Amino acid sequence: METSRGDLNIPFRTLLGPGPSNVHPRVLRAATTPVVGHLDPRFLELMDETMGLLRFVFQTRNTITLAIPGTGSAGMEAALVNLIEPGDGIIVGVNGYFGERLCEMASRHGAELRRVEAPWGQIIDPDQIERALAQRRAKVVAVVHAETSTGVLQPITPIAEACNRHGALLVVDAVTSLGGSPVPVDDWGADVSFSCTQKGLSCPPGLAPITVSERAVAAAHARRSPIQSWYLDLSLITKYWDSNRVYHHTAPITMLYALREALCLVREEGLEPRWSRHQRLSHALIAGLTALGLKILAPEPHRAPTLTVARIPEGIKDLEVRKALLSEHSLEIGGGLGPLKGQVWRIGLMGESCTQANVLLVLSVLESALARQGWKCEKGAGVVAAVKALA
Amino acid sequence: METSRGDLNIPFRTLLGPGPSNVHPRVLRAATTPVVGHLDPRFLELMDETMGLLRFVFQTRNTITLAIPGTGSAGMEAALVNLIEPGDGIIVGVNGYFGERLCEMASRHGAELRRVEAPWGQIIDPDQIERALAQRRAKVVAVVHAETSTGVLQPITPIAEACNRHGALLVVDAVTSLGGSPVPVDDWGADVSFSCTQKGLSCPPGLAPITVSERAVAAAHARRSPIQSWYLDLSLITKYWDSNRVYHHTAPITMLYALREALCLVREEGLEPRWSRHQRLSHALIAGLTALGLKILAPEPHRAPTLTVARIPEGIKDLEVRKALLSEHSLEIGGGLGPLKGQVWRIGLMGESCTQANVLLVLSVLESALARQGWKCEKGAGVVAAVKALA
Repeated sequence: METSRGDLNIPFRTLLGPGPSNVHPRVLRAATTPVVGHLDPRFLELMDETMGLLRFVFQTRNTITLAIPGTGSAGMEAALVNLIEPGDGIIVGVNGYFGERLCEMASRHGAELRRVEAPWGQIIDPDQIERALAQRRAKVVAVVHAETSTGVLQPITPIAEACNRHGALLVVDAVTSLGGSPVPVDDWGADVSFSCTQKGLSCPPGLAPITVSERAVAAAHARRSPIQSWYLDLSLITKYWDSNRVYHHTAPITMLYALREALCLVREEGLEPRWSRHQRLSHALIAGLTALGLKILAPEPHRAPTLTVARIPEGIKDLEVRKALLSEHSLEIGGGLGPLKGQVWRIGLMGESCTQANVLLVLSVLESALARQGWKCEKGAGVVAAVKALA
Repeated sequence: METSRGDLNIPFRTLLGPGPSNVHPRVLRAATTPVVGHLDPRFLELMDETMGLLRFVFQTRNTITLAIPGTGSAGMEAALVNLIEPGDGIIVGVNGYFGERLCEMASRHGAELRRVEAPWGQIIDPDQIERALAQRRAKVVAVVHAETSTGVLQPITPIAEACNRHGALLVVDAVTSLGGSPVPVDDWGADVSFSCTQKGLSCPPGLAPITVSERAVAAAHARRSPIQSWYLDLSLITKYWDSNRVYHHTAPITMLYALREALCLVREEGLEPRWSRHQRLSHALIAGLTALGLKILAPEPHRAPTLTVARIPEGIKDLEVRKALLSEHSLEIGGGLGPLKGQVWRIGLMGESCTQANVLLVLSVLESALARQGWKCEKGAGVVAAVKALA
């Protein structure tokens, strides 16, 4: 026997990485509601209610607004695989790890891919997207709203306007923004936006909220070739979520209980207050990190309020600091992805994790860990700066 | 506002449909364990432990034995999309709804598809598979072990032997058998077997256990074209589950807590006792249904112990009976799929739902519902026959 049975003894972590974020006990409790059938009339009511709540957080009237039975990346793949046919042109904004992932997926689906690049840590220049569209038509433009690898918040409106002028469909990755930052799908005129559950919504990971415009549905209907994925075929998934109720997959029942509860918490707080909370506390965090002598990767005003990415100072050992935070304070922050590995820390303040206590805690423990490696700064500088910013 | 906030007030159901099955409170409790990061050292330990437990239920030494972040159908799509390249030959056994689904997926991935058919309710003749293989080479043969639409249990060994003789890879859909019926992956020599969590394992739905032979890994490595799905690319998923620990997706953390606990329950019971429990109680159920005058669709000895499919007697209204069971007894049984819609009931005895109490309950309430529609049989005939069978 290769395994030994022990009690499930998992420590409580303060989750200040790029996600998952901490989950409200009400959400965990909701997930223990007894399982019912995926076609149970009471469960179908819950699906309807969840669609309504998702429309609320996505600020949209899109009929097709539902939860894909997979993680955020399943949402990304669903967005692309439903729109892209082999040979279709796609322009992808690439300024980080998740822009690369969009390219990787689009290529696998046979897209004729054009990259519009910016350095990691900078926004994509909307004019460059416009020029690429003017040069040669593309069916789809895909961009990341909040780049989880860099903490950059991309302005979507000018890109949406360019897409509109050139008749391209706009796909927006809202994985690290939804629930912590405005994702005004209808105001943008975005055609497909997707997210995850475990960041701004503070639900356990496992579902991918997605919303699809009528224009995107029409484009999917007009395909000449079948959608390569059966599991992520939105026309089939929609027939289960809408009044047809045609069995496609067995919905992750308890995850949907949890998601509904997490969305209820968002609605009780209200979108505007929730966004201001994220904005205010990320400003405090940035003030504190700056006072500690750390540089923020993303320039003002293009910083995602949900995720702050700071450069690791010269001579400081990344892993040693993160291990100290985890083992001594049970606190998780994220390391860098791809070329930023060892170069940055990613500090998330998302959903339930986005509290004043957590801002003060992470600044205080980071200062100690840095001091231990010989980093010099005034004692308590980070915490003091954060408190001032909050005053 | 389209939604109204109310408490999550979901009734307790006795789940005797084709899945989900009832979930042990220990499993639901495990899912409320606090969320940690998907690369947290303690979570990585849990992944290792889960792989060991999955190898135990799949009776395999396959290194790649893990949980896909999606439902059972994601497991099916993963099995096919990793092996199939456009133009590759696949032979699919089709004797029900899920054989059709295998065909649908294989076609979307560009396979050159050959169907070996049997009437719904019959097994696939292994000789026909052998003849098809002899006629023209195929890269993959795919069959359903327990057909969820018919309750037929397919003998796998002769098909595996035929695959072995002709150098084809064997894919086995073990969605409705794993945890309730032997799935001896290594003894069969199956190359990819996948399942779900919400049937024989009695965990909430949302993950797809899968196990992959070295031969299948080699075949995937030898591909000339990339795997069409990034999300279901097993080489990437494996690099997260194995010692590389390369981030691919954010694991559904709490679902994995639940799955581990559900697998621990299987191990505590033991495989043999668990299989006998399912066998014994399904025999009792069949004795009872037969005494009520119902006919079982699948012939002896090809009946899945997890799922019994009975023909609805002439003149009996399907929906009326199922609605009465649900509203009066909070008990769910399944209706027919596809051409069997309105023709059969699917009664599952899976995992935690597979109890003597449930056998007696379903026979008793079914008798009442039938009697109300004028069906004649001796009072208590079903229950009496079941008790005799259990004696």
